[in-house]
Parts: sequence; C-alpha cells; structure tokens
Amino acid sequence: MSTELRNLKGTFDFMPEEQRLRNEIIEGLKSVFEIYGYQPLETPTICYFDILSSKYAGGAEILKEVYRFQDQGQRDIGLRYDLTIPFARVIGMNPQMRLPFKRYEIGKVFRDGPVKAGRNREFIQCDVDMVGVKSILAEAELMIMSYEVFKKLGLEVEVLYNNRKLLSGIISAIGIAESQEATTMLSLDKVEKIGEGGVRTELEEKGVEAALIDRLFELLNLKGEELLNYLKENPLNAMVQQGIKELEELQAYLAAADIQDIYVFSPWLSRGLEIYTGTVFEVFLKDRSLSCSIGAGGRYDKIIGSFIDKGEEYPAVGITFGLDVIYSALVNKGATTSKPPAQVYIIPLGRPLEALKLVTELRRKGIAVDMEMQGRRVGKSMAYASRLGIPYVIVLGDNEVSEGSVSIRNMNNGSEINASMAEAYKYFLY
Amino acid sequence: MSTELRNLKGTFDFMPEEQRLRNEIIEGLKSVFEIYGYQPLETPTICYFDILSSKYAGGAEILKEVYRFQDQGQRDIGLRYDLTIPFARVIGMNPQMRLPFKRYEIGKVFRDGPVKAGRNREFIQCDVDMVGVKSILAEAELMIMSYEVFKKLGLEVEVLYNNRKLLSGIISAIGIAESQEATTMLSLDKVEKIGEGGVRTELEEKGVEAALIDRLFELLNLKGEELLNYLKENPLNAMVQQGIKELEELQAYLAAADIQDIYVFSPWLSRGLEIYTGTVFEVFLKDRSLSCSIGAGGRYDKIIGSFIDKGEEYPAVGITFGLDVIYSALVNKGATTSKPPAQVYIIPLGRPLEALKLVTELRRKGIAVDMEMQGRRVGKSMAYASRLGIPYVIVLGDNEVSEGSVSIRNMNNGSEINASMAEAYKYFLY
Repeated sequence: MSTELRNLKGTFDFMPEEQRLRNEIIEGLKSVFEIYGYQPLETPTICYFDILSSKYAGGAEILKEVYRFQDQGQRDIGLRYDLTIPFARVIGMNPQMRLPFKRYEIGKVFRDGPVKAGRNREFIQCDVDMVGVKSILAEAELMIMSYEVFKKLGLEVEVLYNNRKLLSGIISAIGIAESQEATTMLSLDKVEKIGEGGVRTELEEKGVEAALIDRLFELLNLKGEELLNYLKENPLNAMVQQGIKELEELQAYLAAADIQDIYVFSPWLSRGLEIYTGTVFEVFLKDRSLSCSIGAGGRYDKIIGSFIDKGEEYPAVGITFGLDVIYSALVNKGATTSKPPAQVYIIPLGRPLEALKLVTELRRKGIAVDMEMQGRRVGKSMAYASRLGIPYVIVLGDNEVSEGSVSIRNMNNGSEINASMAEAYKYFLY
Repeated sequence: MSTELRNLKGTFDFMPEEQRLRNEIIEGLKSVFEIYGYQPLETPTICYFDILSSKYAGGAEILKEVYRFQDQGQRDIGLRYDLTIPFARVIGMNPQMRLPFKRYEIGKVFRDGPVKAGRNREFIQCDVDMVGVKSILAEAELMIMSYEVFKKLGLEVEVLYNNRKLLSGIISAIGIAESQEATTMLSLDKVEKIGEGGVRTELEEKGVEAALIDRLFELLNLKGEELLNYLKENPLNAMVQQGIKELEELQAYLAAADIQDIYVFSPWLSRGLEIYTGTVFEVFLKDRSLSCSIGAGGRYDKIIGSFIDKGEEYPAVGITFGLDVIYSALVNKGATTSKPPAQVYIIPLGRPLEALKLVTELRRKGIAVDMEMQGRRVGKSMAYASRLGIPYVIVLGDNEVSEGSVSIRNMNNGSEINASMAEAYKYFLY
C-alpha cells in the first residue's frame, strides 16, 4: 500500500507564487528593522523542555501546546513556541553582552493545539525586541518603526495603544477585587472581537458586580482625551497617575515623529498576556477586513529578569509581526504574486551547446534566464513561455549560429528585434 | 532551583555578527538561484512519520536519526531530516504542476544523531532541484550555477565530478560481485578523506579480492582524459559506454560555459547515497582548508517516481549547499562580520523629543540610526558608539535645538562638520 501524501493540518506548503510574496514581506521587514538599529539573531528550534517551561507568565495556556518529546539520549526536549524565551535565554547566557541589546529574529514556532483560522501548528514569527532601556523612548521607537513597516508594505493600519498601569489602576480604584484584575483585563481586551455586550456577559459570568461593570464601562467609554483629562483632575490612585505620566510621554514622542494619526488610545486594551507591565499596542487593518491583529507589542520589564533569575532588572520592549496575516492582507488587497520565473526563455533548435553558452552569458550579466531542456518543439515551447508570463523568447538554431545573431521576440506584442549574440544582453538590462 | 540556561549539543545561537554574514550568504545564494530560474518553495518542518520514512533509498541510516514523536492527537510525526522528501511530496501532491519544476528551498533540517565536527542536530540546508528533465543539460545547469555561486561568495573551489554509470560499469566489468557494488562505491567515495591506503584496507575488510582491488585502482588512477580514452578503446560493457556518453556530453556543456578549469573528473566519486543514478559532483575548497565538501549534488532519476508511486518517471537533478561550512570557509578567509549596527548615533542631551524627531527623519531617508536611551552621559555614550564602530555621532542639546543645527562628529578622525537639522541627512546618503 502506498503512503498517502499529505501535510499535517495547520502546516502548509508555500508554492513559489506564494513564497515569493512571503520573501518580499520578510525582506521589507528586515530592511526597516535594520534601519532602526536592530540586529539579526538566530536561535535553535529544538530546546530543552525545562527551559521552555521555566517561569514564564502567560505560561500554563501556552505550555499545554508545546510539542514535547524525548531524543535518543532520553533528553526531555520540545519545539520552541515563541521567540521570547530564546531571546531571554541568550541574554542570560551572555552576561558580557552590552545593553541595550536590540535584536530581531524571524523564525518558525510551533503549537501543538487545535487548528482554527489564524491558528496554525507551524508558523513564522517576526519579533523585534530591545532589552536594557527603561525610558518610554524604547516603546516609542518600536511604535514608530511599526508605522514605517506598514507604510512600506502599503497597508493602511490603525494601532490601538494603552498602558496597563492605567487600566490596572482604574480597575482597582473602581473596587474590583485584585484577584479579579487579570481576568477582568482579559475580558476587556476582547472588546474589538466580541463588542461591549460580549465583554459585559463575560464579566458577569466571572462574577463581577453589575454596578462595577457599569462604572468601568462609563470610564473607559469616555473618548481618549476626555478620559485622560478626567483622570488628571481625579487622580484615582498612584497607579493611574503613573500610567497617565507614561502615556503622555509616549504621546509626545508619537507626536514628535508625526504619526499620531494612525495611533488611537484605547483604554480597553491589555493584550491578554500578563507579561506586559506598561505600554501595550496592537495593530489592525484600518478597514478591519481581517478581524485579528497583524502585529502587537508592549513593554515587559519583569519577565527576562525573572527568567534569568539573577535578581537584576531587564526592562524590555518588543513587537511581533504576523507573517501569515500580513500575507493575507496583501493578497486581499490584490498583491501580485505571479512574477514570471525568468525574463528570457531560450529555445535551442538542435544547438544545445551554443544555446547554453548564450544562456550562461546572459545570466552572468544578472539577467534571469530559463532554457528549454525537454526537447519540445518550438510551438509548444513558445506556449510554455507564454503561459509562465516570460516576456521574451529567443530561438537558437543553425541559422542563428551561422549568422551569430538572434531574434528577440517580445511575447506581449509579437514584435521581434535582431541582435548579435554578443550584444543581446544589452536588450534586457534596461 | 533555577534552570540551567543552555542549548542542546549540536544546536546554536547565531549572534548578530555571525547572523549578518549568514544572511549575506543566503541572500547571495538566492540571487544566483533566481537568475537561474529557480523559484522559492517552503515546506513544513513537522511531518507525518510515514511520509518521512516511505521508500527512500539511503534510508535506513538516515531514518535512525529522525526526531520522531507523537502530537496531542496521537499522530505519529517527526521533524524533516532533508528537503528532498518534502520536494518529492509536493510534486506528488500537485499532479497539475507543469514540468520542469525548478525550485530552491532554504530551511532547517534535523538529525537526532551523535554530534561531531560538521554534524549538527539542527542545521540549514540550501537545496536547488529540477524535476522533469532527462537531458544532461539539467545537471550542467546546476554545475554552472555552482560555479557562479562560489565566485559570488569569493571562494576558490574545485568540483570533483563523475558518473555513477561509469563507475558501476567498471566495478562490474572487473568482476566484483553485484552484491558488493554499493559497498565498494561507498569505500571508493572516501578517497578524499582516508586516501587510497584507507580505501584499500576498507575494501579488504569487506572481502573484496586483492587482485580485483589492484585492477580497480589501476584503472581509476589513470588520469581523467587517459581513463576516458582507454575506456573508449576498450568499452568494457554497455554501462560503461553509457556513462562515457553522458560524461562527454556533460564535459561539452561545461566547456561551453567556460568553467572546465574548476571541474575535475574524478572516477572515484559516487556520493555514497544510492539515490544517485548518473552524474554526481562534490564541491571542495581548492586549498582543502576544510576537508568536508561545501556543496554536492547529482542526478537522481528514480527516487521521486518511486516515492510518488504512480509508475511515472520523474528524472531529477539537485544540489545542496551547506550554509555552516560556507560560513566557516568565509570566516577562515577573514570575512568581516563586525559591521556596526548603525551609521549614526544620536545622543540627546535633555532634549529627547527633538532627538527622536531627528532620528526618525534620518531613518525615513533610509539611514541606519541608533539613539542613546539610557540617559548615559555624553562621554560614556561616545565610548559606546566608538566600541560598536558607529562612524558618526551627533549630540543634540539645548544649543543645537535653538540654533537648528548639529555637529556631525566623524569618529574615525575626530573631525566635526556643522549641518542644519533639516539637511543633516544629506551627509549620510553618499
């Protein structure tokens, strides 16, 4: 019985026309990251499980989904499920490292969980992080960088941002028990997805008093500026005050970079994961044609220090870009993925040596060339080149060899021009 | 107790200075592959184990080293150990695909085996393959492409090549039993590593008669041209004749591309794995400063058809470039990996808003800029920029803001030039 050829659900082959666009996205991201002073880092996919599972807030949920197994040496290992743990490990293993350390990593991560739209078993994360800077300048830099990234990609986005200290202070000031703070934030964070009604239902189910929910919604529904002004006049507690201070500093930086137009203060936002300690932000397509976010980040000052466990502080900020959602967004916008595999197609008519020589010369000039090798007839070969969208075709047979010149056929309009073999390349360089 | 931070043996962190060079190598490879008409493909890392283990010559040895485990759905899965199986699977799963299909894939593969120099548990393969072409033009194209790849990388290489039909025919003609053919080839293939003496010892241990070994060595030690001339006058059998025919065709193509100088006919070569059916080749550094090959390939006409199991033929050729060995070769040659993370470093003196504004403007012009964010003093910040090799520094304080201009300090010679903030970018563009 033959094996059924198939992929695991939630894993994919990316065929050339898809992969070309994915590569373009990655190149675009990298070029912006590097202009912002972030350097490439690459870390292993297979890891000791004790490291994958060591002290990581937001852990239990994620740990359930780690691919975990033993190798032949009976070591307990697993596949990385994010790029943050490896980042923290690298910092811990390199105590001589100068801070700030600014790195990006683009690599595959794995989740052994149920597959849904937007949740795959194997996917590429593009992470940019900086460790060692307490100043709000750090998150401002990442947010400005995000603006440039999406401008470069040609995607119109809106970035919601908030400060968890502010939200945490409000929740506490209203009188919601500390034990319910995290779960309250988790529900509020879903307002983009399930609306206020959905959030209210969740909070009621979680046992938050209706009067407190009313009060909370009343505050959060003040429009951005109004809420900040209200809180400045009524500083509910120290946490709220600190949150406002940080938010205002951030807003000043966003204004200095002249990008306030895409940034929207959203006091509901917390980004779920408890690792975030201050600024949080989440990028959505402006037209919301994809409901999930296409990038997100924030400040996480505690997790690296706790992971390294040396009692030192490692203030950090980071952002993740989702390659798959960016790809979907671009395809929905009609991004072209059907670039021809070559600029010129050469059909040898019984003169393979001379054809190969010409092909090689053109390629050496940097021109993408392909060549007929299956011995198909000219008509069939022309049709093949045409189907692939290759714009120029050269047929090379006895006449061409004896004359030392070829006809270059423009496949779009059928016109032909004659060129000596030695100079044919010039036709394609411009 | 805290977790000991460490990597699995045979897996590595690539720090920015290493990763930058690795990325440059990959970009260099990709650009040549695409000029040769090969298109990117990306396939999953985690795979059904039955596919990883289905009919693959050269299998038993490799299958012992597959990372194999179950996911939470009790599916029997594993990590890919090469990029050939995924390539064959993609062809099998896409029967509508037009042949020839020319693809490259650059990705991680995994081997759960003992770690030695040059044998890691996780490493990147760069594979280029073409399926659908019987003509020797196909392997000629890959060999010409290899030449261009190493020229582009600045590595002087020597490429040994052979035809397995020729070697197989010689072994058979000499009278070595068919059952010993494969193992004989395996030993002969090691001549670069263990020398003729080592090969002889191995063959004797395998029970090949001394007289046959003598005769074999006598033939193989005729210098390339001489061996071919001898065999043309004494056509030992049909297999040898076919091998010579293919070799001579290949040599004509290499000559047409004017690259015969780095290609050396080596009748000993077989490339171990039995999947190869005709042409084989292996790339070495010319000075042999690394003893292992840094790229290798050949023709494998049977394996894809047997894998897909539809009774059709899928003639194929392919080559693998080893990223790690190419990296080592370049580092040994003194390749510079210490590019500064930015071209300009901006130190804000109590004026972070204006500094951020200038930083952002420069970055928007495509200039890589970094900024002091930890509040360090000017002297310390200058020293930091200097250590990182950042060539220019701008200090931006009250004076600069009120004058609207900055001094750009050249860190190499200490000279300074004055520029208006609005025009500072011009200084870095050329």
